[in-house]
Amino acid sequence: MSEIRKHYFLDEYCIIASERGRRPSDFKSGTKKIRPTNCQFCGGNEDKTPPATAVYKNDLILQDTDGNRVTGWQVRCFPNLYPAVSPETDKLTEKTENSIVFEGYGFHEIIVETPVHDKTLPDFTDQEMAFLMCAYRDRFLHYNSQKKIAYVSLFKNSGEVAGASLDHTHTQLIALPLNPPKLVKELEAIASSSSCPYCTILKNELNTRRIIAKNDHCIAFAPFFSQYEFEVWIIPYTHVSHLGECSEDELRSLGYMLKKILAKLRFMLDDPPYNFMFFQETGQYHLNVRIQPVLSKIAGFEKNTDIFINTVAPEQAADFLKIDTD
Amino acid sequence: MSEIRKHYFLDEYCIIASERGRRPSDFKSGTKKIRPTNCQFCGGNEDKTPPATAVYKNDLILQDTDGNRVTGWQVRCFPNLYPAVSPETDKLTEKTENSIVFEGYGFHEIIVETPVHDKTLPDFTDQEMAFLMCAYRDRFLHYNSQKKIAYVSLFKNSGEVAGASLDHTHTQLIALPLNPPKLVKELEAIASSSSCPYCTILKNELNTRRIIAKNDHCIAFAPFFSQYEFEVWIIPYTHVSHLGECSEDELRSLGYMLKKILAKLRFMLDDPPYNFMFFQETGQYHLNVRIQPVLSKIAGFEKNTDIFINTVAPEQAADFLKIDTD
Repeated sequence: MSEIRKHYFLDEYCIIASERGRRPSDFKSGTKKIRPTNCQFCGGNEDKTPPATAVYKNDLILQDTDGNRVTGWQVRCFPNLYPAVSPETDKLTEKTENSIVFEGYGFHEIIVETPVHDKTLPDFTDQEMAFLMCAYRDRFLHYNSQKKIAYVSLFKNSGEVAGASLDHTHTQLIALPLNPPKLVKELEAIASSSSCPYCTILKNELNTRRIIAKNDHCIAFAPFFSQYEFEVWIIPYTHVSHLGECSEDELRSLGYMLKKILAKLRFMLDDPPYNFMFFQETGQYHLNVRIQPVLSKIAGFEKNTDIFINTVAPEQAADFLKIDTD
Repeated sequence: MSEIRKHYFLDEYCIIASERGRRPSDFKSGTKKIRPTNCQFCGGNEDKTPPATAVYKNDLILQDTDGNRVTGWQVRCFPNLYPAVSPETDKLTEKTENSIVFEGYGFHEIIVETPVHDKTLPDFTDQEMAFLMCAYRDRFLHYNSQKKIAYVSLFKNSGEVAGASLDHTHTQLIALPLNPPKLVKELEAIASSSSCPYCTILKNELNTRRIIAKNDHCIAFAPFFSQYEFEVWIIPYTHVSHLGECSEDELRSLGYMLKKILAKLRFMLDDPPYNFMFFQETGQYHLNVRIQPVLSKIAGFEKNTDIFINTVAPEQAADFLKIDTD
């Protein structure tokens, strides 16, 4: 029998229909990768992208100029060549009788986490992951402090099916002049709660079969409300609202956990396409990271209802992904 | 310059970023189809599905029994072999301290629109489309009148990327014991409006470049708020809330328009994968059909924000899809 599950604190639903005939091993996808000869994200090809706005190299944060590109870097950040939003406007809203338009003001940045083409996050050392989390924090804080920016979206698309147009691993950052509906809805629900819902989720999930891993600073679990097959949430114990409030130890823990989960997904599901997203903002929110493998389609039913059909119960997903980190 | 557009009456946004480097012709997908030798939806293979709950044949509506399957049909409806929800439960809600669970009560039906494997809706005669609309109406009304059913989702996934697991054309119906969030949000916004927002949309869009086609009973247009590339909405002029309120003429018009749009998409975009969904309910709603080709990915940004990036402006999409129906 399937179950329709209500979100922890929002009016959203998903259907857990694990009897629809697929076992976890049926999701193995075996993504084939073709190595391009001239990948624009590879070390040595720095002139193939717009000039970098931040280049992490030997504990320094440098910038490219038009004539001089920094080489030998660890992490490299530059504007997306085809941005969804752009800073080249200062006219923010336009309202006519029948429509409301905001001009597409904002920033769209690519964060390349390594100059090495075939390396992905599960291959990173713990030190490299900690370093990357610090870079994520810096870029988030940088854009979050810009005038007219209300929200900074930090996310990764891995694999073509998950929306990546290039194989070389990279993260994206889109800074927006408005609070997105997803966040607004959460913040409204949080404001009407007597305590932080994520603190409650943490406390409760710790004692369930859905726990996947825990360390000194955060837990990873398959959420009771899982919209996607093998969805995993990582939440720090401390009520931090964004990466800028994390200690160095917390960032290290978070990076370690993210790497462990991605490695486990790669191993168990044969390198599935996935997205991960940082949910954070600078108010009362509780930072969380959601990893969502792309193993089924968002189809007519989801588009008609906003209800997602998930064919693997999170309890089953947690059994499958469990990691002994104690 | 891209634009961030607000939905007509909801707090939702999409980004129109038509300069991201893709032209309409770049979306041609050229879906390859393989004809299986033993398609379970084909005429003659009726024993390969569960017994049909409604078989349209010679102006009659018949039913299969376990021992006897009706053949020579026009439209055939049967329970999905792997249902997302099922009527085999009567326990509706379960609430524990930390979670709310509704059991997955409901109905999940497959509607096969033709016994012919390679035929798709654009190949239908006008008469066949009118007949199909009547079948849609019947099935909607049938499930909508069932005890404990709050919402009936009627949708089509065409093409593997759009979520179809079989090539033979078919529509799906999922009847749910709850009102989905998408509808609730719309109904709340409608209740707080002084007049029907869809009647207003109709009136306004009629005079814009975004109009694609119109006939005696409905219009088709690329909505100002388009979440997907080449998204098309069809709305009847009359304020009908669901298919059961449409006259035979209105059903015929709606079917004709749906066929024309699907034919145009097939011709202009090389048979793209797509979803279409009926948005309807039995209260104050205004029936509308949304056709959403699947030409880009729902990726990390959308999952982080609920804001969709659309790389084709609806004005451009309407120019591309325009049909002279007057």
